[in-house]
Amino acid sequence: MLLTDIGQLIVVPPGPLCGAQMRAPARIDGAALQVRDGRIQWFGPAQQAPEDPERVSAGGGTVVPGLVDPHTHIPFAGERSGEFERRLAGESYLAIMQAGGGIRVTTQAVRDASEDELVAVNLPRLQRMLTYGVTTCECKSGYGLTAEDELKQLRAIRTLKTRQPIELVATYLGAHALPAEYEGRPDDFIEMISDPALLRQIADEDLAAFCDVFCDAGAFDVDQSRRVLQRGLEAGLRPKLHADELKQIGATVLAGEVGAISADHLECIDEAGIAALRGAGSVAVVLPGTSFFLGIEHCDTRRLIEAGLPVALSTDFNPGSSHIENLQWIMAIACCQLRLTPTEVLVACTANAAAAIGRADRVGAISVGHQADLLVLDTESLAEWLYTPGRNRVRTVIKSGKVVHSAA
Amino acid sequence: MLLTDIGQLIVVPPGPLCGAQMRAPARIDGAALQVRDGRIQWFGPAQQAPEDPERVSAGGGTVVPGLVDPHTHIPFAGERSGEFERRLAGESYLAIMQAGGGIRVTTQAVRDASEDELVAVNLPRLQRMLTYGVTTCECKSGYGLTAEDELKQLRAIRTLKTRQPIELVATYLGAHALPAEYEGRPDDFIEMISDPALLRQIADEDLAAFCDVFCDAGAFDVDQSRRVLQRGLEAGLRPKLHADELKQIGATVLAGEVGAISADHLECIDEAGIAALRGAGSVAVVLPGTSFFLGIEHCDTRRLIEAGLPVALSTDFNPGSSHIENLQWIMAIACCQLRLTPTEVLVACTANAAAAIGRADRVGAISVGHQADLLVLDTESLAEWLYTPGRNRVRTVIKSGKVVHSAA
Repeated sequence: MLLTDIGQLIVVPPGPLCGAQMRAPARIDGAALQVRDGRIQWFGPAQQAPEDPERVSAGGGTVVPGLVDPHTHIPFAGERSGEFERRLAGESYLAIMQAGGGIRVTTQAVRDASEDELVAVNLPRLQRMLTYGVTTCECKSGYGLTAEDELKQLRAIRTLKTRQPIELVATYLGAHALPAEYEGRPDDFIEMISDPALLRQIADEDLAAFCDVFCDAGAFDVDQSRRVLQRGLEAGLRPKLHADELKQIGATVLAGEVGAISADHLECIDEAGIAALRGAGSVAVVLPGTSFFLGIEHCDTRRLIEAGLPVALSTDFNPGSSHIENLQWIMAIACCQLRLTPTEVLVACTANAAAAIGRADRVGAISVGHQADLLVLDTESLAEWLYTPGRNRVRTVIKSGKVVHSAA
Repeated sequence: MLLTDIGQLIVVPPGPLCGAQMRAPARIDGAALQVRDGRIQWFGPAQQAPEDPERVSAGGGTVVPGLVDPHTHIPFAGERSGEFERRLAGESYLAIMQAGGGIRVTTQAVRDASEDELVAVNLPRLQRMLTYGVTTCECKSGYGLTAEDELKQLRAIRTLKTRQPIELVATYLGAHALPAEYEGRPDDFIEMISDPALLRQIADEDLAAFCDVFCDAGAFDVDQSRRVLQRGLEAGLRPKLHADELKQIGATVLAGEVGAISADHLECIDEAGIAALRGAGSVAVVLPGTSFFLGIEHCDTRRLIEAGLPVALSTDFNPGSSHIENLQWIMAIACCQLRLTPTEVLVACTANAAAAIGRADRVGAISVGHQADLLVLDTESLAEWLYTPGRNRVRTVIKSGKVVHSAA
């Protein structure tokens, strides 16, 4: 298949792209792109395009790689709009969490749901995310908080992979919060949730690629987090970390120490954390939807880029701290509030997001041999897309060379 | 027509609602609402509903008044995404404006467009706004900056009124920016644009209800603004004012002095300005999309509410400083960043927005005799709507008792 009439092709190279590389992607005006067996076979100026019997027109629109959302809490059940109202009336997220609200409310809803119910509730979310341009998405467990309920969440993700076009990458987040029945016994919970037999089962059944921990004030400390991540590593699950969101407790330094593929949140990151990520080659995943939704300070993302880190962006879609499923919303916040350029934002949501979930060799780039995951926009430039918050400019979504969504 | 199966009816009373009144609207669970001749005839608990041969189900959803957007710069032509990129690379809005960019670029595009072209380009914008739930919208001239081109914009608004369901209220904003041909001669421009014959023609042809001025650093000073607004008043056009956005130059005090129906922006409002608005009974129209889009400090909106002012919210939809047509986006910013409660946000986008454009006696409220402009949401509560940024929860839009939009 030859995608023709591309007004402008944004040539994002494979990630991770560090610092100034994030502003470097080339643009080809009047381009074409050939797909073979679901992969990019060729791209370049239209007049040099190879012959191809199957031609699809991009209608003069801009073409970019399909978006990658590298940090979501799908699948979840229930909703917490009451808590949202309480926060707007002045209560803090941490205070609500300590009063038995927050994650525990979602835990109860997830425990009460069957695997089929989890699939049914989360399928429409993924279907909407596709229309915003997401073609690859990370999903986490972490609301079950028993071996059985965590496995149920991971199996729901496995089923969701087969029910819709978005490629899903699973993460085991057993150490997400301390459930009520373990109150006062966090180390016992850590033992249970990082039981080597459980971790081996998750790896053997290919239920997750990564192991993640919420390492923060009100969640788990550095020692507890290290224990879980090391056991995960022994079972073949690569570490990820929720780090430096609410308070600076050394979480990002731990991420570097264990060679985490990414450290996520980073609102309170310090110089030691930045050095640790640089040393380990970890991706810095910034979640401005969370700081927007909670009304807290954004992560100083420019500082991370200037420090030479590869920065990715994500929704952190979850029912408590970022009830935002639309990655385009995050891209607008990143431009207008984090003051990233449109090109930096695109790289952060494609090449670097792919690197944050170990898929940079296959998705998130316009590169020969990469999967043909593409978006056709109804704009003349990348900047025009991000200049239009609140309006979906994605006209066509292509996954592995097939059109999987077209705007009405 | 009887609207039945309303899960929750949010009973917003007619505006303006000041201070704590903004949190007071009642909620009726299990409600019904009767429409007659396009107006609300009755509402209350479903079991007390009158007989009606025509019944429409709200499907258990929440029902609120149709949204009112009281400050937009529709109709405009052209786009300024290049300037958006320059700002993200570090240039200020004011610097771009002073270098011949900004409003002047749009002025050229509007001057180059015919009235028909203005209608054609802006009609889809209004059609999309309807899907977000807007049933009444203010539109301004202000990009023509000659008598002829200003009249062309106002006539385009008059035509747009007849082409789609949103009720449009027009404002004359001749003193929006100094066009290049008047460089160094602002007072000559003010004379031309506030020529009594022109203002009388606008009023006589019913082309506008209000006269507005951009009174700020880089635009027009207080004396120039006063002259325009007073002449507008003499022609029967009620004053409005762009005030205290970029710099504190006494604009809001002027708004009070001339009895403006609203003062809009207010990022830099001071105590004297607050007192002036209170004295004049003006509505404070806050435009957080602009501060979001420009990356500047938001207006301290809580302070205005605590001072007892009626606060309204609006998109300020325009191609330079707030290219956001989606009022739901503004509502989310107002919750998450201005820390307004969902009820305050709804009042600010209905009853108080209606008051800001002199329509409080007719729209923006659930009140017997008011126009039946209603939204049916696919949520169980108002909070659930605002808790879901980035996803359109409006299922049905009703204007004067008629269904004018239904989500697919």
